[in-house]
Parts: sequence; C-alpha cells; structure tokens
Amino acid sequence: MDRLRLCFAGLGIDAILVSHLPNIRYLCDFSGSAGLLLVEASTSTLFTDSRYTLQAGQEVRGARVHIARKGLLGAAGAYLRGRQRRSIGYATGNVTVGQKQTLEAAAGSRVRWIADANAVEKLRAVKTRDEVVEMQAAAQLISDVFRGVLKIVRPGVTELDLAAEIEYGIKKRGGSGPSFETIVASGPRSAWAHARPTTKPLRKSELVVLDQGAILRGYCSDMTRTVFLGRASRRIRGLYQGVLRAQEAAKAVIRPGVKAGDVDRAARSVLRQLGLAQYFTHSTGHGLGLEVHEMPRLGKGEQTILQDGMVVTVEPGVYLEGLGGIRVEDDVLVTAQGAVDLTTAPREFLEL
Amino acid sequence: MDRLRLCFAGLGIDAILVSHLPNIRYLCDFSGSAGLLLVEASTSTLFTDSRYTLQAGQEVRGARVHIARKGLLGAAGAYLRGRQRRSIGYATGNVTVGQKQTLEAAAGSRVRWIADANAVEKLRAVKTRDEVVEMQAAAQLISDVFRGVLKIVRPGVTELDLAAEIEYGIKKRGGSGPSFETIVASGPRSAWAHARPTTKPLRKSELVVLDQGAILRGYCSDMTRTVFLGRASRRIRGLYQGVLRAQEAAKAVIRPGVKAGDVDRAARSVLRQLGLAQYFTHSTGHGLGLEVHEMPRLGKGEQTILQDGMVVTVEPGVYLEGLGGIRVEDDVLVTAQGAVDLTTAPREFLEL
Repeated sequence: MDRLRLCFAGLGIDAILVSHLPNIRYLCDFSGSAGLLLVEASTSTLFTDSRYTLQAGQEVRGARVHIARKGLLGAAGAYLRGRQRRSIGYATGNVTVGQKQTLEAAAGSRVRWIADANAVEKLRAVKTRDEVVEMQAAAQLISDVFRGVLKIVRPGVTELDLAAEIEYGIKKRGGSGPSFETIVASGPRSAWAHARPTTKPLRKSELVVLDQGAILRGYCSDMTRTVFLGRASRRIRGLYQGVLRAQEAAKAVIRPGVKAGDVDRAARSVLRQLGLAQYFTHSTGHGLGLEVHEMPRLGKGEQTILQDGMVVTVEPGVYLEGLGGIRVEDDVLVTAQGAVDLTTAPREFLEL
Repeated sequence: MDRLRLCFAGLGIDAILVSHLPNIRYLCDFSGSAGLLLVEASTSTLFTDSRYTLQAGQEVRGARVHIARKGLLGAAGAYLRGRQRRSIGYATGNVTVGQKQTLEAAAGSRVRWIADANAVEKLRAVKTRDEVVEMQAAAQLISDVFRGVLKIVRPGVTELDLAAEIEYGIKKRGGSGPSFETIVASGPRSAWAHARPTTKPLRKSELVVLDQGAILRGYCSDMTRTVFLGRASRRIRGLYQGVLRAQEAAKAVIRPGVKAGDVDRAARSVLRQLGLAQYFTHSTGHGLGLEVHEMPRLGKGEQTILQDGMVVTVEPGVYLEGLGGIRVEDDVLVTAQGAVDLTTAPREFLEL
C-alpha cells in the first residue's frame, strides 16, 4: 500500500478506491469475493459484508474492516461523503457504469472521480521475491500434473477425462484449483484455440492440445503442450518444430528494457519465414500472477517495457482448419540474464 | 432474440448491445470468451476476434459473425457510427466506465446510450422447458457426485482432497466443471460461509460443510450439505434441525405470484423463533441457470415476483464462531404446484 501511495501525487488523487478483487488481495491479503478497499494517505479501509466478518478479521493486514449492511458501494460512498473536496482514484476498467452511478450518488458532488491509470496492476506486474517463489511453485505444480497425465493420454480416453484428471491432480497436489477451464482439444477440434473439452474420445493420428494452469496459494500458472497420438506426418512435425522455434526466438529476446511488442515480433517473424504467420491468430503471451491474464500483454506493437521480475507466458501457436492446432506455452521470469523458464514439462515433440 | 426485441419499444431503444457473455450464449449459442452481440430490429451481429472464427462459425445461430481486427468495442462502435440518430440499449451493470468511453468514441455522438434495465437477465430468469430439462440434469449430476463423495468423508481426509474428488466426479460424469470453486470447510472453518478448502484434515466431532455445483452443457447447479463426523451433541442436532426447518418453510411458500422477499422471510422467521436469526448472515437464495448467481435474489425485502419456470436455490444457514457452520441448500423449480426439488441428495442429518 505504501508503494501505491507514492503514485497519488502523480495521479493528482488523495486516495484510491480499489474494487478489483485480485488487487484487494494483493494489497491487504483479503481473499473473499466481496470487497472494496479505500487506500488513503495514512489509513486504509476494507468494506465487505457480513458473510466475511470472520474471514476478514483473520486475513486482512494493514486496513480496518468495515462491515457494510447494505451494499459496499453505498457504504464506501457514504464514508467519502464529507465537506472537504477530495479526488479519488478508481479503475475505469473495473467499475461498471452502474457502480459508478451508485458511488457518485452516495459520495455526493464534492468527490471528484479520477481514472487510476491501472496503478495497482502496474505494481502487480513486477513480482516481489516472495511472489516469484510462489509462482515457481505454481508452475512446478502444473508441470508435475502434466507429466502424470501424459501416462494416460491414449486413444479412447475422452477430452473431458483428461481435463478431469488434470484438475484432480491440481487439487491433490495442494493447488486450490485450475487457473482457467482446462483445455483438452483433439483432432480437428484442436484448431479451436480456446476449445472446451468434450466427451469426444481421442483417436489415433490426432493432435492433442492440453492447456492447463493451477492456482497455488493465490498465484497462477498456465502451460500448454501439444502431443500426437501415433507417428506424425512430416508436415505435422514441421509445424511443431516451427512453433517451438518461434517460442525459442521469443524467449531469446526477453530481457529488461525490451518492448513487449518485440517479443511478439520475434515469434511472428519465425512463423512468417515458414509461411505460417496467417495461422498464428493470437498474441504471443501475457503477464500472470494473482490472475491468469494480467499486465503486460505480449502482443503486436505493445509498447510496455519489460522489467526484471515480470512473469509472462510465451505461447505461439498455429491453427489449421481441418488439420488441428499446435501450441507450446511456458511461464517465464524476466531477469537480467534473460528469460528463465518456470514451467518444466518436456518441450520436444511427443508421439505417444 | 425475438422475445428480447419485444422489449425495445418499452425501453425506447432501436437495438441492444449485449456484452455479458452468458447473455450472448443465451441469445445466440456462442460460448467463446470474447464477444459483443448487437441485436437490431431485424438482424443481429456477433462481434468476436480471430481466435473464435472457427468456433463462432459452428456455434452461432441467428446472428452474422463479424471478426474484429482490433477490439470488439471499437468494431461495434464503428458499426453503429452512421448518420441516423439511434438509441442503443446497454447494461450499466456489465459495461465498465472505460468500455463505455471506448464505445462512445467509436460510435460518435449520434448514438444515444440507454440503460437496458436488465432486459436479457429478466428473460433468462424464467426458464424454457428445454432449459428446465438441462437444469434438472445438472442438479442430478451434482447430487450423484455428492452421494459418491460421501463414502470417503472421514477423519484424516483433507478438505482439498474432498474438493478434488467432487470436481473430478463432476468431469467424469460429463460436466464441464464446477459452477464455482467447491467449498469444503470443516470444524471451526465451517463458520466461514465462503471458506476455500485447505490442506486441513477432517477430524472426529467436526461439522463439515460441502457446497458444490456442476456446469453441464452450460447450465449450473449449486447444492450444500452439512454432515458431522461422529455423534453430534444435542446442541448441534438442534441447530441442524432448525436450519432444515427454515429451508422447508422457505420452500413451502414458493409459488408463482409470491414475492422473493417473502421466501427469505419464511426462512428467517423460523430461525428467529429458535433464537438463531443473528447467525443467519446471508440471504436465503438466488436464481441460477447459465450463471450460478442470477435473478431473482431471495433476500430481505426483495420485491421481485416469482414466476412459473424460475429456478432458485434455497439455502439458509447458521454460522457460530468457534463451533462451526450449518447450511442446507437445494435447487428448486417454481411451479404452479409449488417448489419442486431438482437436487436430490439426502437432507437428513448425517452422522458419519
């Protein structure tokens, strides 16, 4: 919270009202599903409801807890209503039009509302040493889960069976759950970059994309591997090697000071040289931490400068209608020595 | 979509821009994670991005698909930009302040933006016959999963082990996953109404709250049972019977024409007579369907009138610091004959 307060002067605000739950957790450790955190120059107040009285009492650090009887927005607004004219930062990307109306009505016209320019997200993008330890553990967990599940990837098993095994493995190893709905997509369905697993059984001579992540003590991992059932054609092996080379090229340019867009360009240019650029239909990666998608985005033309301590995914892929998709994704830590892999599952082409 | 169009005149709008993904799925079957659906008087357009080209082509019914190259809001706004002055409905509760700014900039000043008064959510609250069939299947699935998991509820098993078994069971039975993060809370932790499962092992003479739900073909179930390990004291048995009687009283008043708040009052007044009202710290229930929380809310003073075909949870509970919590929750269908239980797991007090 003290690092956040250092941004107040630059933003021209006296306080910031934090509404996004991962931001609240980051700042004061509260993990409940209803909260608003007001960070003022010298105090902080967490507004939550009566379901969380006990939990907030045990979890919250650095903030008083205010149990709101009817609506958090109304309670926070009423708290702010006063005679002194004040400027309050808020996240235009997290507060809905309706919530803003409720806040304004409760706080009155003496409060000026000012966009917070993602102040908390920018802090979160650079991980502390403790956070890196947690993220490494979450990445190791999903790598271990994947290794275990590899043993049962065979014809006849359904996509949902594999997704169930992955998510079961996450919890059995102490994770609190998947960081997103596990993707297992086989055959032509693997060309859907975000396919939901179905009861379709895996068949011989199919590509299988497995995209999985775990939440461990609040922190997320996110890893994709693509395997083949049987012996692959030269075409498919070539596609796989292309994607892997694109991933390696992207990792090779990662270091503090580089623009996020340059990482994307490195991956894209390898695929372009192979005539595959048109099949790479998404961006190269994204930050992760308390959320599975956070800053920075590694997309075309992104100007964000990478910093020591950021954690990002690197996940190029190609998707060919009818044939299938191939994606390889790791979580990496940005260090002065370059990208350090946090996920550790094998990257070579597995023909099972 | 035709039922939605019937609301246009009443709202004074020419079209509605739907941004909430479950609403989009409800209206046109698209299940991807990025979409905006513009429903006009005679046509509809789904804006999505290139990750979903193939999936949208297969899933979407009743709408054209527009693949946006840079940002869905910008694409939808640009589409609306024209010479004719038009009024477009949107959901103030789902569109952020920042999204609204992007939309306004792209659409220009000739578009008037008008709050949609939850038009789609109101349609969704009353289920069609096909939806009821799906919800019954989702409720049956979670009831079956619970019965299976009951066999391994014993001292020494951890909360996370049980949560893992529940979520594994959901996928093994064909569900796409849990409809929310499964709650397994034992001993004093069960007094946290929304506790996350931990590595804490269950111990003899503890209450265990298991709150679980499945998503099956898009539709959610949500069911809670509370069991005891060993023989319970008279106090705890009395608390359990009180909660169960409160639930039965709430179910008994459910029928078309009744106010949502009256259902809450029925549960609360049973607990008040037993001197337990202060331990019932949340509302009695909520609608469910494509989302695990939707309209109507069964809370204090809620004026919404229940209608034939609504599906709601009924879930009173009491939470005593130090001792633990007890909650019993079923999903019920509102019919002219009263509440019909969709979840079927045993409700009597189980001492395991």
